[in-house]
Amino acid sequence: MVDLQAVLDSIYKELTPRIGEGKVADYIPELAKIDPNQFGMAVVTVDGKVYRAGDADVPFSIQSISKVFMLTLALGKVGEGLWKRVGREPSGSAFNSIVQLEHEHGIPRNPFINAGAIAVTDVVMAGHAPREAIGELLRFVRYLADDESVTIDEKVARSETQTGYRNFALANFMRAYKNIDHPVEHVLGVYFHQCALSMSCEQLARAGLFLAARGSNPMTGHSVVSPKRARRINALMLTCGHYDGSGDFAYHVGLPGKSGVGGGIFAVAPGVASIAAWSPGLNKVGNSQLGAVALEMLAARTGWSVFGD
Amino acid sequence: MVDLQAVLDSIYKELTPRIGEGKVADYIPELAKIDPNQFGMAVVTVDGKVYRAGDADVPFSIQSISKVFMLTLALGKVGEGLWKRVGREPSGSAFNSIVQLEHEHGIPRNPFINAGAIAVTDVVMAGHAPREAIGELLRFVRYLADDESVTIDEKVARSETQTGYRNFALANFMRAYKNIDHPVEHVLGVYFHQCALSMSCEQLARAGLFLAARGSNPMTGHSVVSPKRARRINALMLTCGHYDGSGDFAYHVGLPGKSGVGGGIFAVAPGVASIAAWSPGLNKVGNSQLGAVALEMLAARTGWSVFGD
Amino acid sequence: MVDLQAVLDSIYKELTPRIGEGKVADYIPELAKIDPNQFGMAVVTVDGKVYRAGDADVPFSIQSISKVFMLTLALGKVGEGLWKRVGREPSGSAFNSIVQLEHEHGIPRNPFINAGAIAVTDVVMAGHAPREAIGELLRFVRYLADDESVTIDEKVARSETQTGYRNFALANFMRAYKNIDHPVEHVLGVYFHQCALSMSCEQLARAGLFLAARGSNPMTGHSVVSPKRARRINALMLTCGHYDGSGDFAYHVGLPGKSGVGGGIFAVAPGVASIAAWSPGLNKVGNSQLGAVALEMLAARTGWSVFGD
Amino acid sequence: MVDLQAVLDSIYKELTPRIGEGKVADYIPELAKIDPNQFGMAVVTVDGKVYRAGDADVPFSIQSISKVFMLTLALGKVGEGLWKRVGREPSGSAFNSIVQLEHEHGIPRNPFINAGAIAVTDVVMAGHAPREAIGELLRFVRYLADDESVTIDEKVARSETQTGYRNFALANFMRAYKNIDHPVEHVLGVYFHQCALSMSCEQLARAGLFLAARGSNPMTGHSVVSPKRARRINALMLTCGHYDGSGDFAYHVGLPGKSGVGGGIFAVAPGVASIAAWSPGLNKVGNSQLGAVALEMLAARTGWSVFGD
Repeated sequence: MVDLQAVLDSIYKELTPRIGEGKVADYIPELAKIDPNQFGMAVVTVDGKVYRAGDADVPFSIQSISKVFMLTLALGKVGEGLWKRVGREPSGSAFNSIVQLEHEHGIPRNPFINAGAIAVTDVVMAGHAPREAIGELLRFVRYLADDESVTIDEKVARSETQTGYRNFALANFMRAYKNIDHPVEHVLGVYFHQCALSMSCEQLARAGLFLAARGSNPMTGHSVVSPKRARRINALMLTCGHYDGSGDFAYHVGLPGKSGVGGGIFAVAPGVASIAAWSPGLNKVGNSQLGAVALEMLAARTGWSVFGD
Repeated sequence: MVDLQAVLDSIYKELTPRIGEGKVADYIPELAKIDPNQFGMAVVTVDGKVYRAGDADVPFSIQSISKVFMLTLALGKVGEGLWKRVGREPSGSAFNSIVQLEHEHGIPRNPFINAGAIAVTDVVMAGHAPREAIGELLRFVRYLADDESVTIDEKVARSETQTGYRNFALANFMRAYKNIDHPVEHVLGVYFHQCALSMSCEQLARAGLFLAARGSNPMTGHSVVSPKRARRINALMLTCGHYDGSGDFAYHVGLPGKSGVGGGIFAVAPGVASIAAWSPGLNKVGNSQLGAVALEMLAARTGWSVFGD
Repeated sequence: MVDLQAVLDSIYKELTPRIGEGKVADYIPELAKIDPNQFGMAVVTVDGKVYRAGDADVPFSIQSISKVFMLTLALGKVGEGLWKRVGREPSGSAFNSIVQLEHEHGIPRNPFINAGAIAVTDVVMAGHAPREAIGELLRFVRYLADDESVTIDEKVARSETQTGYRNFALANFMRAYKNIDHPVEHVLGVYFHQCALSMSCEQLARAGLFLAARGSNPMTGHSVVSPKRARRINALMLTCGHYDGSGDFAYHVGLPGKSGVGGGIFAVAPGVASIAAWSPGLNKVGNSQLGAVALEMLAARTGWSVFGD
Repeated sequence: MVDLQAVLDSIYKELTPRIGEGKVADYIPELAKIDPNQFGMAVVTVDGKVYRAGDADVPFSIQSISKVFMLTLALGKVGEGLWKRVGREPSGSAFNSIVQLEHEHGIPRNPFINAGAIAVTDVVMAGHAPREAIGELLRFVRYLADDESVTIDEKVARSETQTGYRNFALANFMRAYKNIDHPVEHVLGVYFHQCALSMSCEQLARAGLFLAARGSNPMTGHSVVSPKRARRINALMLTCGHYDGSGDFAYHVGLPGKSGVGGGIFAVAPGVASIAAWSPGLNKVGNSQLGAVALEMLAARTGWSVFGD
C-alpha cells in the first residue's frame, strides 16, 4: 500500500516552486482579489483517514463544485425524473454557451454546465423561497462535511453580477422554453449563493466522501444516496465535470472530478478515497493549473485511475 | 468472487425473449441483410479465462469498434503527436457531423467520430499504399486476437458507398484544412476496409484484452502498449466511445467501451476483463439495443463499473 | 399611369373570400384576441394622394414595424456610429435566435431582428429614463404621421411577457458583452412599448412616406433624413426586413418592407409611394398571409418592383 | 440626363492612384498570378449605348459571376421547381460554409453560395456529360454577350484544386442527402469550368443586359427570360449576391450585383443599364476593393440605386 502522506508531501514539495502559476479568475471581482500564492490538498480515504498538504485548511470559494451537491439534492427530490429537465451528455461547448440550448429547445446538455446547474437549482427550490432553498443547501453540505463551520460568502454571492448577465440570459432562455418554473431572479439568487459556498480542501473531501464509499459517509455513518446513484454521479463527473476540458481531464487524471473557477478541484477514487486540491491560478480552459497537475501526479503515484493502474 | 459463467448464462436467458429487438442498420446495404435474431457475448478475464454465451463465435462486422485498434496503431507510430491532428474531447454531436469540423478548422473532436477516425487512418498510412495499410491493420488485429482467421469482409467494404458520400465530404473537408495528407480515395479505401473487419465476440474480447491488462495480453504475453497508454485509450473510450450517447453509456454501464453499427459493443473492465457483446438490432442512438442492455446487466451483477461497486 | 384606386379595389375584391386565412399570433396573449376577419390597405403617393381599401382606418399593433422608426431615430442620434453596435447583414436565422449572438460576440446581425432592435433601443435611450424615451418615440411617430391620435396600447405592452423571456435572454446576453448600456429592464420596457404602437394602415403609410420621398414628407414638408439615409434604410428593409423570409419577400414582391406579428406590413416604392397592408392571420414564417399576397399583387399590377417592371 | 462617359471618366481618374489596392485571391494558384495593377469598367444602357473606362476590354476570370448565368439556364430548364433543390434566402455565412448545409439537410441556402451553385450545376447537367454541359454554358454566354470570342481558361479550371477540396466536401455532403444526381467529379468538373469563364467588362455587361431590360437583350433582340424572371434573378442578386457582404453592398451601392474572386463585379440598374467593374485586388470580405468603390461612386453619381435617388 502506498504511503499517502508521503505522496502528498512529495507533490507539495515538487509544486512549491510553481505556486502562483496560472491566472486568477477576474470576471467575478471578489474572486479576483484572492492571493494566488496558495496551494492545498486533502485526501480522505474510505477507512476514514485524512491526509493534508499545504493550505488544506484555508476556505475558498468552491463555485461550480457546488453543482455536485445540488445535483445530489435534486436527485433526492425528483429521482430519475430529473432527466426530463436536463441531459446527461458532454456538451462539447464552453461552460456558459447558449448555442446548444437553442438547438435543443431549452434542455441543457448536462447538470454541470451553467444552464444545467440553473435548471437543477430550479428543481431543488420546489416552490420554496430563495432563503429557504439556500438554507437547505447549506444544511445539506454541513451535514455531508459533518462540519457546522461551512459558510456562504455573501460578498462573493453579490459579486457575481459581472458574469451574472450571461446567467440571466441562460435562465430567461430556459424560462422561454418553460424549463424554469420559479422567477428567474429567485433561481439565480439561489444559484449565486451555492457558488459562493466557502470550504477548505479538507471540508470538501469530507463532504464528498460518500461518492467514494457506495453512497454513505463512513466517518459519520450517514447514508446519503444508494450505491447505484453514487456511481452515476461519478459517471457524470467524469464525462461532464470539466466543461470542454472533460476529455482532457479523463485522459490525464482518470478520476471523476469537478472543478470550480475559485481554483478548487474535487475528485473521487471510487472505493478508495475522495480528494480536493486547490490553487487559485487557472489554466487556459478555466481549471486550477496546479490543482490539475497535483491530481495527475496523485493518480499516477497511487494507481487510482479508474482506467487501470 | 462472482461466478461469471452463471452471470452470462442468466443474462442470455433473460434476454432470449427479446432477441430481435431494435433495428438493423440499413444505410449500408450489406449490413441490412443480417439476420437480426442473433445475440452473443464473450468475456475474457486478465487471468486468461474465457466465458461465452449465445452466438459468441459468429463473426460480425465490427465497424466503428475498429477505431480502437486504429487509434492504438496510430499512437504507436506518432505517439502523443497524434493530438495535433485530432482532439480528445466528446463531440456533443452525431457521429458524422461536419459542423464542428468547420468551427474547429478541420481538427476533429476525437478519434472515435468518423472525421477523427479518418484522420487517424491518414496517420496510420504514413505514406504507404492502401493495400499495405490494410494489410498492416489486419496483421495487427490477428496478432492482438492471436487468431489468424480474422478477415475483412470485402462485400461490406464495397457496400459502404451509401454512407460513403458523407465520409467523402468529411475527408475532403479536412484535406481543405491540410489535415489529410494522402489522396482522399486512398484514405477512405483503408477506412472502409477497417470498418469491414469481421470478428466474433470471442475474437474481439481477446483482441482487446491488453486494454484491461496494463497494455499486455496475458494470454500471449504480447506487450502492446504501456500501462499509461492503455489507461488513456480507456479514458477516450469512456468519454467519446458512443458518439452523443457516451454520457448515457457511462451513466448506465460505467465501463469504457466502443460500439459499432454492426451491433457490436466492446468494453473494458480495467484490471479485470475485456468484454464483447453483439446483437444486430440498434437502438435509436445507433448502438446495439440488446448489447447495451447486456452490458448494463453485466456491470450491475459483477460490480465492475469503474465508478464504484 | 395605373389607376391606383382601381388596383386597390381589385385586390380587395379578390382577397375578400380569403379574409381570415392564416393564424393569429398567439404567443402574445393580447394579440391572440384580435378578430382575424380584417384586412386593410393604404397607399400614399409622393405627390400626396391617399388610396385606401378595406379596414384601412382600423388601428392595429404594428409590433416589429416600429423597428424602422427606432432605427431612424438612432441614426439621427449617433449617425453611422450605430454600426459599431449592430451589423447590417441578413441573419439567416429566426427573429429571436440567440445562436448568432454568441458566435458574433454580442453584436446582433442587423437592426431588424429582435436582438438588433433591442440594441437600437439602448442607443435611442441615450441615458434617459424609459418614460422619456417612450415619449420621444411617440412624439416622433406622431410627427411622421402628422397625426396626434397615434397611441401606444398599454395592454399589449404588458402582454409581451410570454415572449418576454427570450427577449430578456437576448438583452442580458448582449449586456454580458457590454453591448447594452442601460438596465435590461429599462431597455425592454421601452422595447415592449414601441412594439405596442397602435396605428392604422393609413397612419403607417403616411408615417413612412419620407422613405419613398428622398427623406422628406411631401405632405407636411418635414425633412426627416437625408436622401442617402432614406436609401440606406430602404436597403436594410429589403435585405433584412422579414427575418429569414427576407429573400422570399424580395423574390415575390420586390419592395423594401418590414413586417410585424400584428399582421401589418409596411413597404416602400422608392420615388413613388409608401404602402401599408394589414390582416392579422400570419403565414408559417410569421408574416401576414394576406398582407404578403396583397403586396405581391400590388407590385405586379403597378410595376413598382425595384427589380424592374 | 447624366453624362455617363463623364461619370466613368471621373471615377477612373479618381481611382487611378488607388489601382493595385487590395489583395489578389491566392487560394487558386492561377489567379494569384494576375497583375493587380488593372482596373476596368463598362456600362451598357438599355438603349444600346456602351461606355468604357480603363481596362474594359481585358478578359478576366469571372468566377462566381458565372453563377448568374447558370441560374438563368437552370430556371430555363426546370422553372420554379428549382427551389426544391436550393433556397432563396441569404445565408448569413461565408461562401463556402458547410454548417448550414447540415442544419438544413443538404438544401443550400441560395444559388449564389458555392453549395447552391453546385446544386444548380447538377440541375443544368440534366443527364448530360460534363463536356456537353460545359459546351452548352459556353454557347449560352456567347449568345448572351453576342460575342463568339468568350472562352474558358483551362489553366484556371485546372487550378481550382487547392480550393477544390472544400467544394468536393460540399458536393459529397449534398449527395449524401440525395441533392446531387450526377457523379460528384462530373458536377465539379462543370462547376470549375464555369468559374473559369474569361470575359472582359464589356462582354460581361453585354451578356447581362437582359437583366436590366425586362429579360431581353435590346442590342440583339434576343429574348432570354420573362420580365418576371429577370426581376426575380435581380432580387436574388441583391439579397444573396455577395455572400455575407450582401447587406453591406445593398447599403452602400443599392444595386443587384454579383461578385467573383477574380475581381469582377457585375451589377444591374433595372430598366436602365447593366454594369461591370473589375480590379483584381480584393477587400477583406473577398470582393473587388476598387470594383465596389467604383460601383458605389457610379450609383451615387447617377442616382441609379434601386432604393431611391
